Amino acid sequence: MRKPLIVLALFVCLLSGATAYATAGGEATDTVVNVLIALVVILVAAKIGGDATTRLRQPAVLGELVAGVILGNLVLLGLGWFEPIKHDSVIRALAELGVIILLFQVGLESNLADMMSVGLSSLLVATAGVIVPFFLGWGVGIWFYPQHSIYMHVFLGATLTATSVGITARVLRDLGRLATNEARIILGAAVIDDVMGLLILAIVAGIIRAADTGQAMSSGAILWLVAKAVLFLGGAVVLGRVLYPILFRAAGYLRGHGMLLVAALASCFVSAVLAAKVGLAPIVGAFAAGLVLDEVQYRDLPTLASHRLEELLEPIATVLVPVFFVLMGMHVDLATFGQGAVLGFAAILTLAAILGKQASAFGVVRAQGKVNRWIVGLGMIPRGEVGLIFASIGLGLTVHGERVVFPEVYSAVVIMIIVTTLVTPPALTWAFRRPSATAPPA
Amino acid sequence: MRKPLIVLALFVCLLSGATAYATAGGEATDTVVNVLIALVVILVAAKIGGDATTRLRQPAVLGELVAGVILGNLVLLGLGWFEPIKHDSVIRALAELGVIILLFQVGLESNLADMMSVGLSSLLVATAGVIVPFFLGWGVGIWFYPQHSIYMHVFLGATLTATSVGITARVLRDLGRLATNEARIILGAAVIDDVMGLLILAIVAGIIRAADTGQAMSSGAILWLVAKAVLFLGGAVVLGRVLYPILFRAAGYLRGHGMLLVAALASCFVSAVLAAKVGLAPIVGAFAAGLVLDEVQYRDLPTLASHRLEELLEPIATVLVPVFFVLMGMHVDLATFGQGAVLGFAAILTLAAILGKQASAFGVVRAQGKVNRWIVGLGMIPRGEVGLIFASIGLGLTVHGERVVFPEVYSAVVIMIIVTTLVTPPALTWAFRRPSATAPPA
Repeated sequence: MRKPLIVLALFVCLLSGATAYATAGGEATDTVVNVLIALVVILVAAKIGGDATTRLRQPAVLGELVAGVILGNLVLLGLGWFEPIKHDSVIRALAELGVIILLFQVGLESNLADMMSVGLSSLLVATAGVIVPFFLGWGVGIWFYPQHSIYMHVFLGATLTATSVGITARVLRDLGRLATNEARIILGAAVIDDVMGLLILAIVAGIIRAADTGQAMSSGAILWLVAKAVLFLGGAVVLGRVLYPILFRAAGYLRGHGMLLVAALASCFVSAVLAAKVGLAPIVGAFAAGLVLDEVQYRDLPTLASHRLEELLEPIATVLVPVFFVLMGMHVDLATFGQGAVLGFAAILTLAAILGKQASAFGVVRAQGKVNRWIVGLGMIPRGEVGLIFASIGLGLTVHGERVVFPEVYSAVVIMIIVTTLVTPPALTWAFRRPSATAPPA
Repeated sequence: MRKPLIVLALFVCLLSGATAYATAGGEATDTVVNVLIALVVILVAAKIGGDATTRLRQPAVLGELVAGVILGNLVLLGLGWFEPIKHDSVIRALAELGVIILLFQVGLESNLADMMSVGLSSLLVATAGVIVPFFLGWGVGIWFYPQHSIYMHVFLGATLTATSVGITARVLRDLGRLATNEARIILGAAVIDDVMGLLILAIVAGIIRAADTGQAMSSGAILWLVAKAVLFLGGAVVLGRVLYPILFRAAGYLRGHGMLLVAALASCFVSAVLAAKVGLAPIVGAFAAGLVLDEVQYRDLPTLASHRLEELLEPIATVLVPVFFVLMGMHVDLATFGQGAVLGFAAILTLAAILGKQASAFGVVRAQGKVNRWIVGLGMIPRGEVGLIFASIGLGLTVHGERVVFPEVYSAVVIMIIVTTLVTPPALTWAFRRPSATAPPA
């Protein structure tokens, strides 16, 4: 009885915020007022959307995306209140900071030792889960858009590669299965997968940028890009191991509050900037900074140890991360869904995304004990934030004035992400509850 | 031996960040990279500056200001690395978000009940501490700048009124004297003082804006401004008491993480926007939202109670608040210090600021027990962030094309703030340690 009333009240808040936004425009000094209104709209929408999908036993990120899709497409009904948010440069910067913080968190949740211990199975699962979807996506691109350049086909393949470690981990935690063999293999593979996917992104984006400047990318340049990426990640690991203790020792000498958080964020941001300087995405640097940073490196310094770093990052992520997902959702143009070909393309792309990851199941090494291969294959399905990041980078790439990812493709990718995110929790629940769940299916 | 080396290493980091900033300029897509570099420079500078002043037993905010002054004036030595930071619109928006969060925190630290219980003494101390500095500042303005408009003189008076509750509270906590009678009176008065000061700011800024549009501000318009401000603050109290329980009950029904933080920030931001809409500064709204919000209103909701709100806000404040103070410091133009008249003006203004607040001591009511009037008077001295906010608002005001606060006046105000912030900790320490500290001096 009362709950719908309260959600209605929140929605009224949202609309009144939007009206204020629309009337506040014009005065340049009111930038901060517009930013405040946009943040209220985005955060309230994200929380209502997250609540709705959480009640449906789906991850909150799905609700944030859908909330963004709704806000961004009210303009189709003639309600243009939220349009200024799409183009607010401060909100865009906050969204990009949000995804950098998220990848830093994901990096912190993973660590090198865990990646080593899950070993060969994770590596093979990840490799199969990258290669097969990549070529399936490439093929779907050729099938539906034969008139477009090879760059578009390759980019489409790349968007299908990376598993979303955040969604996978959250689903496994929700199901209470984090301690299983399958969970360890999936999480390890998802981490390797992320790195491979980000490498592929860097290489594909580099090839496309080179093509745009006229000359074809030489094989030497491709090798140099791969080398730079590998050197950056390897260098991050080696340098991080050397520099983190010095950095946190220095931060431990400084008096004042917030030293741990500032030292951690500074290294995350510096790493993101360095990644950008060698041609990688800033998020690769943020992820690498988190991967190398370990609690061991700061917990012995008495001035730093009052809170765990993850606890300190959480409130910042709570505010900034939804800005990224809601804004990404807002850039989904529902008008493109009217074209029958897009829906068909989205359906085939989604099928390729789901089937492609089932190849992962065959990467599990027999020797690693009883493993349900179904669970591994299904657990690799969600693309989540990483796929969206790929697509948003693709939106900014052009070859000879032609956009590599045009609106229909972006919409299809978003549909693929929504569907892969949506099917995973029920699919995994089903796989864990099957009578034969303890025996490998093949 | 090792500490100077480590600070040197941090400084080298800072400079390499600056070099990266300088070379990164130009590409529009690299906005986020520039923001990341600027944040690293600001946060590292803030923490080094805060460390230095903390070692000198001064508040960290002073070190952040001084660090900003140094960064902002390296250009005088021909080092222009940090100049782009001064004009980065995203960094400016982050700074303004920072001061909104800070005033929200200050509001949360205060509460209506405490303000009522310290009662009459706080009210009289606050009133005396607002009226006397206001007219002293006005007089100093007429003395030094007789050729300038009355608006400039009145604005100068206004910048001397508000006590910085943050600095006062931090100093009392550092001295371990938060539980004394004097501390309760000072804190209560500082809160009332803040509200009075912000009202004066709204009225003075309103008068100046009206004057700029040509017509003199009618007494009716002044009354309407006062009425709007009082109505807003009264309305915030009444509406907050009614709406907060509904809001937090609604947030309690929503599933997902971060509901308490998002609900609190959303009400802070909405209140800031509403304050801006009635002509007050957004920070007034943020302060009012914090003042009315009480732990009672959310701690019974099980989904919200895992962390205290203050704990959740702290990491966000750690990152955003120094951006405000360092950026404010960066806008201090040391070149103006070369003019002898500015230094003399700054000295007299500082004297007026310190002596004016000593009138507060006579506001203490005898009946409230043994109170050391020296401590009350000295405790009201620091102007800190509120004075800076006044000055920065003044920088944006013009009457007939003439800026109300011109660079020399701004520099003098900053010197006044630095000195009043600097003298308070040793002065209070001295007053608490005098042999006659338990007896009132008059």
